Amino acid sequence: MLSRLELLFSINVTGLKKSVIRELLKVTQNHEIISFAGGLPSAETFPVEQIADLTKSVILKSGTWALQYGPTEGDPKLKEQIVRFMADDGLQVKPENILVISAAQQGLDLVGKVFVNRHNPVMIGRPSYVGAIGAFRSYAANFIGIDLDEKGLCTDHLKEKLKKMRLEANLPKFIYTVPDFQNPAGVTMSLERRKALLGIVREYQILIVEDTPYRHLRYVGHAIPSLFQLDNGEGYVISIHTFSKILFPGLRLGWIAASSQILEKFIIAKQSMDLCTSPLSQAIAYEYCQRDWLKPHIQENIQLYKKKRKIMLESLEKYMPKHPDISWTRPEGGLFLWLTVPESIDADAMFFQALNEKVAYVVGSGFYMDGGGKHCMRINFSYPSETEIVEGIKRLSRVISKNLDN
Amino acid sequence: MLSRLELLFSINVTGLKKSVIRELLKVTQNHEIISFAGGLPSAETFPVEQIADLTKSVILKSGTWALQYGPTEGDPKLKEQIVRFMADDGLQVKPENILVISAAQQGLDLVGKVFVNRHNPVMIGRPSYVGAIGAFRSYAANFIGIDLDEKGLCTDHLKEKLKKMRLEANLPKFIYTVPDFQNPAGVTMSLERRKALLGIVREYQILIVEDTPYRHLRYVGHAIPSLFQLDNGEGYVISIHTFSKILFPGLRLGWIAASSQILEKFIIAKQSMDLCTSPLSQAIAYEYCQRDWLKPHIQENIQLYKKKRKIMLESLEKYMPKHPDISWTRPEGGLFLWLTVPESIDADAMFFQALNEKVAYVVGSGFYMDGGGKHCMRINFSYPSETEIVEGIKRLSRVISKNLDN
Repeated sequence: MLSRLELLFSINVTGLKKSVIRELLKVTQNHEIISFAGGLPSAETFPVEQIADLTKSVILKSGTWALQYGPTEGDPKLKEQIVRFMADDGLQVKPENILVISAAQQGLDLVGKVFVNRHNPVMIGRPSYVGAIGAFRSYAANFIGIDLDEKGLCTDHLKEKLKKMRLEANLPKFIYTVPDFQNPAGVTMSLERRKALLGIVREYQILIVEDTPYRHLRYVGHAIPSLFQLDNGEGYVISIHTFSKILFPGLRLGWIAASSQILEKFIIAKQSMDLCTSPLSQAIAYEYCQRDWLKPHIQENIQLYKKKRKIMLESLEKYMPKHPDISWTRPEGGLFLWLTVPESIDADAMFFQALNEKVAYVVGSGFYMDGGGKHCMRINFSYPSETEIVEGIKRLSRVISKNLDN
Repeated sequence: MLSRLELLFSINVTGLKKSVIRELLKVTQNHEIISFAGGLPSAETFPVEQIADLTKSVILKSGTWALQYGPTEGDPKLKEQIVRFMADDGLQVKPENILVISAAQQGLDLVGKVFVNRHNPVMIGRPSYVGAIGAFRSYAANFIGIDLDEKGLCTDHLKEKLKKMRLEANLPKFIYTVPDFQNPAGVTMSLERRKALLGIVREYQILIVEDTPYRHLRYVGHAIPSLFQLDNGEGYVISIHTFSKILFPGLRLGWIAASSQILEKFIIAKQSMDLCTSPLSQAIAYEYCQRDWLKPHIQENIQLYKKKRKIMLESLEKYMPKHPDISWTRPEGGLFLWLTVPESIDADAMFFQALNEKVAYVVGSGFYMDGGGKHCMRINFSYPSETEIVEGIKRLSRVISKNLDN
């Protein structure tokens, strides 16, 4: 047997542990448990019959293309549809500024590979999406946490940190942010903050990585221009998009929009990662967009999730114990809200009590790379049914009540 | 505009250039050119109608699964089919030793991420598959080239190098090899050499990365046990597999078999790369295997490629100028053969003359990381039609003839 295997692993992965959240999620797959823990879109939204017929016709029509290898950059026809989709969001993007990727997570891996040397500082929100933390950690990034409030990333906190880092000649490569309906906190960055953020990166000559999985799932209020749009082609923003939440995740399909200099590096790096994204997935998405089915489909998703969000907020109002230190965010879109309980309650420990009551959440501490979040929970409202939402919040309220009494 | 962008790129990608081969391949996409340059399976082999019907029924039957996110490890049902497929090749593998990946290139990226620190030595054949060179280079590996002859990797050369490297306390992490019908050389490692190679890695306590894309496409002779089989569960071999050449590439689907300790690191790393491989692709492959369609399909591919290989070898015999320094390999399987011309001919420069004659190949130098291969060419026989093979070899023979006369 190979005895010195541990010595062969790279330094970067030696420190990587299994994601706690991922391990906890496995426990919640018991059917009796109402899970607010996942981040999955509801399978109710999948246009199964439409996709079955469409896929059959796509394979019959373009099988020799869709079943073959494709170009690393992506299918030019799909890129045209993406350009059209982005134009509806106020964005003027050329096909050559788009790279088709194997969903947003690959975009984060690409950002890590193309920008992060071991111990390079990277700025992320407190809290942040675990998949981004995981991707950048796999390149041994040093995380600099920036506080988040109900208006998104605190740009004053950011400025303060950057001023100090410049003195130390240790500026970060980029700031990672989910400006719309952030995962996990559910908050949206205000227009003022977006403009301030762009001013800051121009001053310090660093990049913004804008991750936009939920942007098109807005249930109340009006869309705020994306950072990519506000950048107006100056090249400070890398914008990551996915079909996972607007169509369905099983395609593993998304795209990056960025300046051509950056995109060129991404293309070279992607070539060595997977040669190309599935041409079959690309052909299905192309056909779906080309038939003009995507926008009405997104509207249907919005109607469904809007109702679920409302039911969840009403249930929280109704069943959560009244306490000055219990609060939750009221997201205008996306899939999650963020529940905060008194600091005396350890949400990590309470997770197992919740499981006993047959309800699950994600522990807030998983979204912090530096401790913190210990009395917080991420609550998903897209996946459970309406009845499950009501019953699950009842159960969770009971668990929290008991902990308040202790 | 962001002026200091170049300073933001990571050290590892700053050195990465666009693949010369990839750029040259773009030139060959003119329809008048007969291309021996690609590495594509023939679209004739794609079971288009079968797949169209099967995919429709898979989506209707398991859409809520196939269109959703899946586990990083892969679909347990597909893994059972993979176990069955490997058993037919003499391998006793447990599902927990298999990780489903987004085709073999992702396997190479995973190997790079999990094992290679900057400047770590990695051993590869001279010549080697460009995608492997690209993947390991993206982690800034230092390549140690091992000569290849008609029996595969020269284990004596390997031993000599390792002896020296041990004295320098600079042993490589692994040896990368394509033992069956190597890309690009078309040679197959003999049983003797395979056993010797395993003896060597046991002595030096390092790993073998066995890449097996063509293993099931054998046209003459008998299968030789894979390195993974000969290792007999001792954990020295990481074995990378793909559906690209046995079914079709558009699925972007493959798997890794390895010891559970290694697989655990791969799973953590893959999680941050793409969360999971397309459940839709997995469901299609599962259904195809489950209906017992895979093995007859491979037999059909073998019949087609066997004929093409024969026609190419006959055409070379017939049209290539007779010269003591012109030779080619006679691969027993796979998609490629390796053509060597006198050292006085620069195959890089001749590429453009060949394009003028409307025939294309891949320059041999692209498969060497240390110079070399300048008078060699990789010739693909799977993609062109039988008529194109004959005409293309005629054209190539004319180009070489002219260069001999100069």
